[in-house]
Amino acid sequence: MTSGTASATTDQDVIDLAVRAREAARVLAIATRAQKDAALEAMADALLAEAPTLLAANAEDVARAEEGGTPPNVVDRLRLTDDRLAGMAQGLRDVAGLPDPVGEVVRGGTLANGLELRQVRVPFGVVGMIYEARPNVTADAAGICLKSGNAVLLRGSSSAATSNAAIVEVLRAAAASSGLPVDVVQLVPSDSRDTVKALMRARGHVDVLIPRGGAGLIRSVVEESTVPVIETGVGNCHVYVDRGADLDRALAIVLNSKTHRTSVCNSAESLLVHADVAEEFLPRVVAALQEAGVTIHGDAAFTAYDGVVAATDEDFATEYLSLDISAAVVPDLDAALAHVRRFSSGHSDAIVTDDQRAARRFVAEVDSAAVLVNASTRFTDGGEFGFGAEIGISTQKLHARGPMGLPEMTSTKYVVTGDGHVR
Amino acid sequence: MTSGTASATTDQDVIDLAVRAREAARVLAIATRAQKDAALEAMADALLAEAPTLLAANAEDVARAEEGGTPPNVVDRLRLTDDRLAGMAQGLRDVAGLPDPVGEVVRGGTLANGLELRQVRVPFGVVGMIYEARPNVTADAAGICLKSGNAVLLRGSSSAATSNAAIVEVLRAAAASSGLPVDVVQLVPSDSRDTVKALMRARGHVDVLIPRGGAGLIRSVVEESTVPVIETGVGNCHVYVDRGADLDRALAIVLNSKTHRTSVCNSAESLLVHADVAEEFLPRVVAALQEAGVTIHGDAAFTAYDGVVAATDEDFATEYLSLDISAAVVPDLDAALAHVRRFSSGHSDAIVTDDQRAARRFVAEVDSAAVLVNASTRFTDGGEFGFGAEIGISTQKLHARGPMGLPEMTSTKYVVTGDGHVR
Repeated sequence: MTSGTASATTDQDVIDLAVRAREAARVLAIATRAQKDAALEAMADALLAEAPTLLAANAEDVARAEEGGTPPNVVDRLRLTDDRLAGMAQGLRDVAGLPDPVGEVVRGGTLANGLELRQVRVPFGVVGMIYEARPNVTADAAGICLKSGNAVLLRGSSSAATSNAAIVEVLRAAAASSGLPVDVVQLVPSDSRDTVKALMRARGHVDVLIPRGGAGLIRSVVEESTVPVIETGVGNCHVYVDRGADLDRALAIVLNSKTHRTSVCNSAESLLVHADVAEEFLPRVVAALQEAGVTIHGDAAFTAYDGVVAATDEDFATEYLSLDISAAVVPDLDAALAHVRRFSSGHSDAIVTDDQRAARRFVAEVDSAAVLVNASTRFTDGGEFGFGAEIGISTQKLHARGPMGLPEMTSTKYVVTGDGHVR
Repeated sequence: MTSGTASATTDQDVIDLAVRAREAARVLAIATRAQKDAALEAMADALLAEAPTLLAANAEDVARAEEGGTPPNVVDRLRLTDDRLAGMAQGLRDVAGLPDPVGEVVRGGTLANGLELRQVRVPFGVVGMIYEARPNVTADAAGICLKSGNAVLLRGSSSAATSNAAIVEVLRAAAASSGLPVDVVQLVPSDSRDTVKALMRARGHVDVLIPRGGAGLIRSVVEESTVPVIETGVGNCHVYVDRGADLDRALAIVLNSKTHRTSVCNSAESLLVHADVAEEFLPRVVAALQEAGVTIHGDAAFTAYDGVVAATDEDFATEYLSLDISAAVVPDLDAALAHVRRFSSGHSDAIVTDDQRAARRFVAEVDSAAVLVNASTRFTDGGEFGFGAEIGISTQKLHARGPMGLPEMTSTKYVVTGDGHVR
């Protein structure tokens, strides 16, 4: 905490923001789709119109990060460009094009006594997002929350504070110009960790908190928050190459799962190979991974190959998010299942096999948000699943599990209509 | 905590139970509906066959309660009879008759790239139930959890400890005799509050906690638990009599909502009357409620009538669960909505009106699990909604809201099937 600064905030300051969000949410909850889509389009237009201001604000964050010795790849994630702003604007227009989840009748019918029962999607109300680095998340989250009828409190990273403040100002002005309450989008100060703690304690004022970022951030929010949390994103994902696998396909899937994009939660972090195909598959997969620049942390079967590092249990438990993979040979499917059970974070786990019995058991017994058969773990993604927008990937079992699109950002209520019915 | 007794438990003891539950849950998750239904029928048979043992165990609890000066109505809730055992057995058979939620495909299709995507219902895994008083909940919860594929840890009230131990022993033996793991149902010792705390800390071992009981119990679990919680049941429910109401219907709905059964969460606790109909409606509703034995805690308009007690804000915030009701006259629909917004616990709120615009606004703007139009609040119930079984009524917005049946006791996972698909 930057103690003594004028902008240091208290719990009450964050609650005040939440109270304003609640008032805005009441209006937003009954806004029509047309009103919301118009606001999203206005927001997209404004991001482009205000590009010079936004890029200038971002340049301040970038300069501060560079002066502070931030690694170049992190600075790159922080940086806004005209292309990235165009992407943010297009993201908002894409959300405008998606169906409105609010008001959807999830189930309904008429009971024996004539009561009409409908279960209808409604917004949560006030959503808190706690996230790191990339300023594009600011616009993405604002758009998804607005379309799903939720007022949002955005608590981004302090490294992106100037960018986020500028983006939020633009979004708020656009919302207001479209006739929605300005407080449908608000920025929570990031000058102190205390504002994160205040959000976590704002039970009753904030309906749900969604942390997006590193494992440490997510764990601390999940453990400390009294506000309900949707846990996102930690992915210690496995690819298991069964003895029934087509080994060409297996090689392509392992490589794609590991190397297509290493910094994301749906990339593979661990490789398991059935002993019956190890002799044929290991030389091929070791060579291919190493050629792609991957460091293999392997068990005894793998360390027989040059350049493979010996793996510890710690390796098998690690989400590397880098060009590293843990690897082991397992005697059979049961051992593969036991390994996944022990080490998987419950995000995405894949089996490569043409054996129907093995595939069926893997699907039934692996308890993860996504279980993939003969497909790369990289497919666990709201975009790939056709959701059109994604606020994160839930790795918890309550409410939503897996990629979360617009419907996952809603609750429901029952509407019961009678004719003077009593029991 | 009853310190120094041999049965005092530690966190580790509760985790040991949860680990055994996890092992049982793995088997139960892939059990067929036929296996689960056979176990439920065996449990029902065993409750009847072991009636003498169960009644004797219950007599110990009842004697202890009576010696301890427990109020007769509480003792009555604790008491088992042949009729109540028959009801418990029938409840298990009813659950056996319901569709199996596990394996239900919630959505599915084939993506543009040929990947087959299915979202499938799966059990949570290990469910913890924390509940008070009635020993019938022990059998009800065990049945619902078993059918939905969840191993359950039952932490009942210490006042029912002997009854619960006997019931659980019978249920476990029946499960085992049907070929399911004995640990699909386990009792958590109730000799100390420490076991409740241990359940709340067992994150990773217990997937979801469901507290059922008084407001104090629920609040403490919601605030202290690091395990995800489904908040149930506190109901400060309103009936608003609009100026567009048919007053005969309004009278019937108010009386039914308040007096049909006072001790339950869906009974009405507060009455709001539009000023335009107050002069005609108040004398009638005051007389009818008082005749039914109800004490009215009213605002100035109501205290003009004999026997009406003056209400404080505290009254309007209170879930009486007794023959008491708070009551106020409101100048218009906006004031009624503001009152509900301020005081409702978000369980069930009803409007009585024949005015379509008023009904539409009330439905849109009241943010409760159930919003009723021209119907008693008593209809918010899994049985009335046709769910066949109910584990509780959720008043939270995440996961499930309103009466929770079998589908609400499940999570989902995505199954993605490809043909060597990579990105």
